[in-house]
Amino acid sequence: MKKIVIIGSGNVAEALALSLAEQGMAPVQIYARNAESGSALAARCGAEYAGEPAQLAPADLYLIAVSDRAIASVSASLDFGDAIVAHTSGSTPVDALSSKIRHRAVLYPLQSFTKGRNVDFREIPLMIEGCTAKALECVREVAGALSDRVLEVDSRRRAAVHLAAVFVSNFANYMYTIGEELLADTGMDFSLLKPLILETARKAVESSSPRRVQTGPAVRNDFQTKNLHCEMLVDKPDLKNIYINLSNQIWETSKKISRK
Amino acid sequence: MKKIVIIGSGNVAEALALSLAEQGMAPVQIYARNAESGSALAARCGAEYAGEPAQLAPADLYLIAVSDRAIASVSASLDFGDAIVAHTSGSTPVDALSSKIRHRAVLYPLQSFTKGRNVDFREIPLMIEGCTAKALECVREVAGALSDRVLEVDSRRRAAVHLAAVFVSNFANYMYTIGEELLADTGMDFSLLKPLILETARKAVESSSPRRVQTGPAVRNDFQTKNLHCEMLVDKPDLKNIYINLSNQIWETSKKISRK
Repeated sequence: MKKIVIIGSGNVAEALALSLAEQGMAPVQIYARNAESGSALAARCGAEYAGEPAQLAPADLYLIAVSDRAIASVSASLDFGDAIVAHTSGSTPVDALSSKIRHRAVLYPLQSFTKGRNVDFREIPLMIEGCTAKALECVREVAGALSDRVLEVDSRRRAAVHLAAVFVSNFANYMYTIGEELLADTGMDFSLLKPLILETARKAVESSSPRRVQTGPAVRNDFQTKNLHCEMLVDKPDLKNIYINLSNQIWETSKKISRK
Repeated sequence: MKKIVIIGSGNVAEALALSLAEQGMAPVQIYARNAESGSALAARCGAEYAGEPAQLAPADLYLIAVSDRAIASVSASLDFGDAIVAHTSGSTPVDALSSKIRHRAVLYPLQSFTKGRNVDFREIPLMIEGCTAKALECVREVAGALSDRVLEVDSRRRAAVHLAAVFVSNFANYMYTIGEELLADTGMDFSLLKPLILETARKAVESSSPRRVQTGPAVRNDFQTKNLHCEMLVDKPDLKNIYINLSNQIWETSKKISRK
């Protein structure tokens, strides 16, 4: 049975720690600067809490789930012995981990985590990478215990996946916030848009390709409706700019498809 | 029992006709130029099919579910007697219906329909409007039989809702197509993004506001990751432009929020 220590107490750390505990692989320690969230998470998964370098527990695998920019410094500041050390970031190369560490690895869960929300880890794609055979096998074993979708992906392709995730998650959510703002301007509530948001997401994932289910005035090149919309956005130049830009792109893309 | 005729045989016509039939209010006739899709839909909901103006059946309510730009001409070309005539468009004013019609109305379902996909009409917001009391009461009764969320909304506010729908549905779906393209470029499949797409939509609708669950490099103003992403998009100037534009907007919006 592998001894695992999780470093960090944020959204990804929480999701990994609780999911490992559910699979009977609870971390032995949560190591985190933030004593409040760190000890709370440790208590929830039956682990001990530590916040000082000297307290770091011996382990087979250290999972570093801290902010991207802290990965290099955190990995350089702790003594991991000859254990395997994996970060959990999409956009960070495996070699951002300190070169003092021999068995560097990555375990990147392709999902957006929020504290307090349960997600089904079995369906989450886990992208793994290892600098040594030992490191790769270790993260493969742990990832396989959590999810049915484990993929070996190098740092360059993982960064492409992370960029795609920014579009489908962060930017899609921003489209929702624009919808919320436009409804609020006329005294209506965001809740009206909820069935449409869910159906749009479901339709895309149940289709063979989101391109095939693209609807709306942009893909029809419906000038009348687009002009009406631009007039309605005359006092919101930033949103008007986004509207025109995305509408043009949708139309250009659909032309390229139909030419094929 | 109201006699209903549906004019059109596209996505909205299909969804309305089948949903009315389920509620025991099957249309008596599907009137459509396209004989193939019109007669197929008529057969599915036990209605007769007609394609010539002289064949239009007498009814209490005519539901015009044709493309926005055809509403005016279709409504002017048929003889509805003194019946109620409602279009089903979000962005079209009620008065786009021919002024020869006395009882003009709107019944706009706020949802994205695709042939062959079942949607639960009970949760779909139906926005109604009527130029006369009789017209309003008629669409209120029919809408109320289909959905638990019937709202009286005038043409100006309905257009705002439709504009919001373009952002949360058409533009969100375009974000999915960009994600698909970026994965395809590195030989990976869109299916990897599906759990993330669904969780992002669920998280937004289950939160009090999508603004509160905004994550990613843009809202953190994470220069390092944003610069990396821009470098990755150097050969795709259109996508790079969208990336920078949306990232800046997300950051500007989040600053306004935190100042409050």
